[in-house]
Amino acid sequence: MMCFVYLNLKLPHKTALVISKASSTRFICAIVLLFVEHLRGFDDVFVFPKHKHNGGPYSDFVSLHPMLKTSEERTSAVGYVVERLGEEQIPGIRSELYPVTSSFGAPIFFSLERAAAPYFGIKVYGVQMNGYVELNEQKHLWIGKRSDQKTTYPGMLDELVAGGLPHGIDCQQNLAKECEEEAGIPTSISINAIPVGAVSYNDIDEYRYKRDVLFCYDLKLPKDFIPKNEDGEVDSFKLIPVTEVAEVICKTEFFKPNCALVIIDFLFRHGRLSQSIQDGFGISRLCECVLLETIYCNYTVDKVKYITPEYHGYLDLLRSLRIGDCS
Amino acid sequence: MMCFVYLNLKLPHKTALVISKASSTRFICAIVLLFVEHLRGFDDVFVFPKHKHNGGPYSDFVSLHPMLKTSEERTSAVGYVVERLGEEQIPGIRSELYPVTSSFGAPIFFSLERAAAPYFGIKVYGVQMNGYVELNEQKHLWIGKRSDQKTTYPGMLDELVAGGLPHGIDCQQNLAKECEEEAGIPTSISINAIPVGAVSYNDIDEYRYKRDVLFCYDLKLPKDFIPKNEDGEVDSFKLIPVTEVAEVICKTEFFKPNCALVIIDFLFRHGRLSQSIQDGFGISRLCECVLLETIYCNYTVDKVKYITPEYHGYLDLLRSLRIGDCS
Repeated sequence: MMCFVYLNLKLPHKTALVISKASSTRFICAIVLLFVEHLRGFDDVFVFPKHKHNGGPYSDFVSLHPMLKTSEERTSAVGYVVERLGEEQIPGIRSELYPVTSSFGAPIFFSLERAAAPYFGIKVYGVQMNGYVELNEQKHLWIGKRSDQKTTYPGMLDELVAGGLPHGIDCQQNLAKECEEEAGIPTSISINAIPVGAVSYNDIDEYRYKRDVLFCYDLKLPKDFIPKNEDGEVDSFKLIPVTEVAEVICKTEFFKPNCALVIIDFLFRHGRLSQSIQDGFGISRLCECVLLETIYCNYTVDKVKYITPEYHGYLDLLRSLRIGDCS
Repeated sequence: MMCFVYLNLKLPHKTALVISKASSTRFICAIVLLFVEHLRGFDDVFVFPKHKHNGGPYSDFVSLHPMLKTSEERTSAVGYVVERLGEEQIPGIRSELYPVTSSFGAPIFFSLERAAAPYFGIKVYGVQMNGYVELNEQKHLWIGKRSDQKTTYPGMLDELVAGGLPHGIDCQQNLAKECEEEAGIPTSISINAIPVGAVSYNDIDEYRYKRDVLFCYDLKLPKDFIPKNEDGEVDSFKLIPVTEVAEVICKTEFFKPNCALVIIDFLFRHGRLSQSIQDGFGISRLCECVLLETIYCNYTVDKVKYITPEYHGYLDLLRSLRIGDCS
């Protein structure tokens, strides 16, 4: 039987998650306890444990009703719950479905409304692209400012192109689509994007548990290319020297948090030896940022540059960047 | 007290190593049981457990003699043992010292003859550089063929530039030095090398336990540059299309094993979307190669290209590439 494992909030989040994973139940969703309460009463969809809580690590779970035998039945039943909970509990409903799986490419148990993903703590996959230009031998990143109308992270700074991976479309197709819609990049240019790996992070707040895996891309753009948003989700774009972007990440909270990860990954792969410096880089702070479940950066540093092995803490930062569950 | 933890060969290698790491002893060296026998008799240098083996996970260790209080004393005492064991037990002695630490940049406990490093199972750090050229929009890698006179991996294929990190020199300086000596690349060109992360692997054979962390670099070379070996360690160089290099790695055992890791890392970061293909890539085999302690590749594949998220097993391979202990 497929299980929704939820978290015992008496334990620290991370500890609870590890226990859930180590259990023999199939770990698909991680629901924060406060949100689980909203699921009580939907007895045809969710089954709560009947026995009294015995404190054991495997007793805290909610499962889908065993009568829901097919993927379609589960999609429809959970969709009904999401609809009933409505905008008050799950704001920003988009009528866009995400596949629910235990890992990338694994069989799909059901599909779930995109806005509901963090409430049900499913793994979500997305693409993020660093779009850069080389001017006077210095790399510059095109940075977007999210529309103030967006439900999530309104007005914050963002990658040039980023998007969740919906059901039935692969990373490459999705990237081309998002390039077109978000930045007006035609396929003739986006075809030059290079996949460079993936990063993963968890982020828990009161009601939501984000478990994201981001496929990262780099795209070197023509010098005269000017991005143009075509879906209304981006207010404006600005071309900023990479070192300045790194400084903004370290000193402010202007960036959408998960962008920090993808840009730090970029800083690891683009610094020429001639551009490394020995002092003042806030690498220990970056390291802390990556390790935190909620990523934030506000450390004051004097100089920020690319990340090279000469910095004390290089391997620590690299490890923490890779520590997420990329599966 | 600093301990040399050696492996109980009754357990599978990996299991034994994990037990050692989880112990409260400071894990510095991992010595294969067969080699430990050579250290008996040097009672002023190594202390063997006196109590009868009780089967517990922490009882199988050899420690340095507590009278050896300073780094210099330990260097000298272990150096004496290495000298006494001589070429028969430790072939290829170079009179070049490696620092012995628990992690990169941590305090140095002592220094050890380079050739002895795998026998004492210390962590060893090195630099490896993919030198490439772009011809007709296709990347080509400069590949070296090791001299038949080399003690280790004679005659095998190798990166353009690679070298261990000796005591007292940082990665950047070491890379510039190796570029000059191994491939005749002047500093004016090698300064453009880009650090792109690190990979790590373990490799156990009968007497040796390699625990290597490799700092990886990419260098885009001028089209007309021809490498020229200046230290006699390389027989010849050849410029080979990247996809052909990948095929050689998959189908043969011509490459020095750890090069496979560094080249797979390169394949993860250099494939344009336009160059991805959907079929025939031996990714599952590559995955297996990376996971194996002794890396080898001999799977027959039809087509080999860059590694992109469209391949089934992409995240598995990425994870296994990153699974090593980069510390």
